[in-house]
Amino acid sequence: MWTKIERGERMADTQPFGRFLGTEITLLQSGQAELQLALRPDLNQEDGFAHGGVVSYLADSALTYAGGTVLGPVLTLEMKINYARPAVGDRLIARAIVVSSGRTQAVCRCDVFAQSEGGEKLCAAAQGTIIVVPKRPKPT
Amino acid sequence: MWTKIERGERMADTQPFGRFLGTEITLLQSGQAELQLALRPDLNQEDGFAHGGVVSYLADSALTYAGGTVLGPVLTLEMKINYARPAVGDRLIARAIVVSSGRTQAVCRCDVFAQSEGGEKLCAAAQGTIIVVPKRPKPT
Amino acid sequence: MWTKIERGERMADTQPFGRFLGTEITLLQSGQAELQLALRPDLNQEDGFAHGGVVSYLADSALTYAGGTVLGPVLTLEMKINYARPAVGDRLIARAIVVSSGRTQAVCRCDVFAQSEGGEKLCAAAQGTIIVVPKRPKPT
Amino acid sequence: MWTKIERGERMADTQPFGRFLGTEITLLQSGQAELQLALRPDLNQEDGFAHGGVVSYLADSALTYAGGTVLGPVLTLEMKINYARPAVGDRLIARAIVVSSGRTQAVCRCDVFAQSEGGEKLCAAAQGTIIVVPKRPKPT
Repeated sequence: MWTKIERGERMADTQPFGRFLGTEITLLQSGQAELQLALRPDLNQEDGFAHGGVVSYLADSALTYAGGTVLGPVLTLEMKINYARPAVGDRLIARAIVVSSGRTQAVCRCDVFAQSEGGEKLCAAAQGTIIVVPKRPKPT
Repeated sequence: MWTKIERGERMADTQPFGRFLGTEITLLQSGQAELQLALRPDLNQEDGFAHGGVVSYLADSALTYAGGTVLGPVLTLEMKINYARPAVGDRLIARAIVVSSGRTQAVCRCDVFAQSEGGEKLCAAAQGTIIVVPKRPKPT
Repeated sequence: MWTKIERGERMADTQPFGRFLGTEITLLQSGQAELQLALRPDLNQEDGFAHGGVVSYLADSALTYAGGTVLGPVLTLEMKINYARPAVGDRLIARAIVVSSGRTQAVCRCDVFAQSEGGEKLCAAAQGTIIVVPKRPKPT
Repeated sequence: MWTKIERGERMADTQPFGRFLGTEITLLQSGQAELQLALRPDLNQEDGFAHGGVVSYLADSALTYAGGTVLGPVLTLEMKINYARPAVGDRLIARAIVVSSGRTQAVCRCDVFAQSEGGEKLCAAAQGTIIVVPKRPKPT
């Protein structure tokens, strides 16, 4: 979650759910992350645009990756998302930045854009708290 | 999104993304909705528990369905989620209620539980605004 | 912030800003807090009802006090509030509960009611994260 | 709430609660608002820094004013705030922008800074939904 990759390199998300959906990591550098997800009918709600849950998943993940670039192994503690416009297009692009960070926590923001032939349109804005993974035994 | 079903009846979510993940609607009655989702490795993050995006998707959907029971066709305008505990178990259960509603909007809350042999544990708490679908042409 | 008081006892908030506004602590017991604030013209916005900032202040404080009943000295890390109805009345009453708590953090919810002769009406719903005060030197 | 003022002009907030606290409007132009508030002991919590409720009040107001610059008479429907750092200093400065807006709603973000001799430090980040005041009789 915290490996830095070069700008422009495109890497599959290594989390099972990210792979399942087809998430690509398109930018990871200090204080920033960008994720992309190709849209397809399976990811829609009944009105023909991407389900809000897909948009919030991508925002949440981008917030986590952005926080991870400054904190190391992290989790999202909480997040908030405003849906600004139906997510219609070929691809979602989530761009997250670190707004403030301390030793164990970071506040991050994310904008999610729907990309189509006509360009990119903002479809959601998110904000959340990313925390260093607490030291405890992994669930087995 | 707003059809009332009898308590206890279990119905597949009719939204493509809900079907894709396997979401079941287990309760829809005035002011309340319950959704369930069987967990499987595809829905996990790398640590072996359900990805936060899965949890927030289910919470978001339950908020929407709950709001829909009092408002008719609806969308989630915005939501906030706190992750309280890793979502480890066989099944997620999201229970949402309407806290306040007007003519075009409702404030709803949702608790998400992870169910395993040991019972149910709260893994997330969400709150959001559900709005009546604005009258405008559907995207084509 | 964490002293337990008997139910029904009414105590002035000992924080300067709480005293300045006239906040009363009307309940503090494990996992719960209730604060009250008498409304007056100074606390209004231009439309004759309590300013949203007054409502969110009271919700935030109640969340903090509730968290403090289980965690000891605490701070609000973040919060979210939905304004459900204009806060018109003689008095605001904020009731907060702990939804989930760990060693250093708690997720709390709060309902704010406006009380008038006609009874109590929900005017806002809040949710937030309360954390144990980090060990660091006090600002001087 | 929606009168445009020239950049740099400093105007007292005309809302009773804003006047009570001493809020100044230091910028109002299309899509942006800046509010300032001189800190004083009355606005503190017990630890010597501004009460979170003061910070969230200022953020909420700045979000509303920013939304008002594009929508006209408005209300805050909901907001979320992350406290990033104790608000220690002489003055709080809240800078809000419109991220997205439609006919009746806007999504806005706000950063709150604590200003002292050492400069400005971000102490909170907020995001919320601003809506056009619904057409209904004013409360009397």
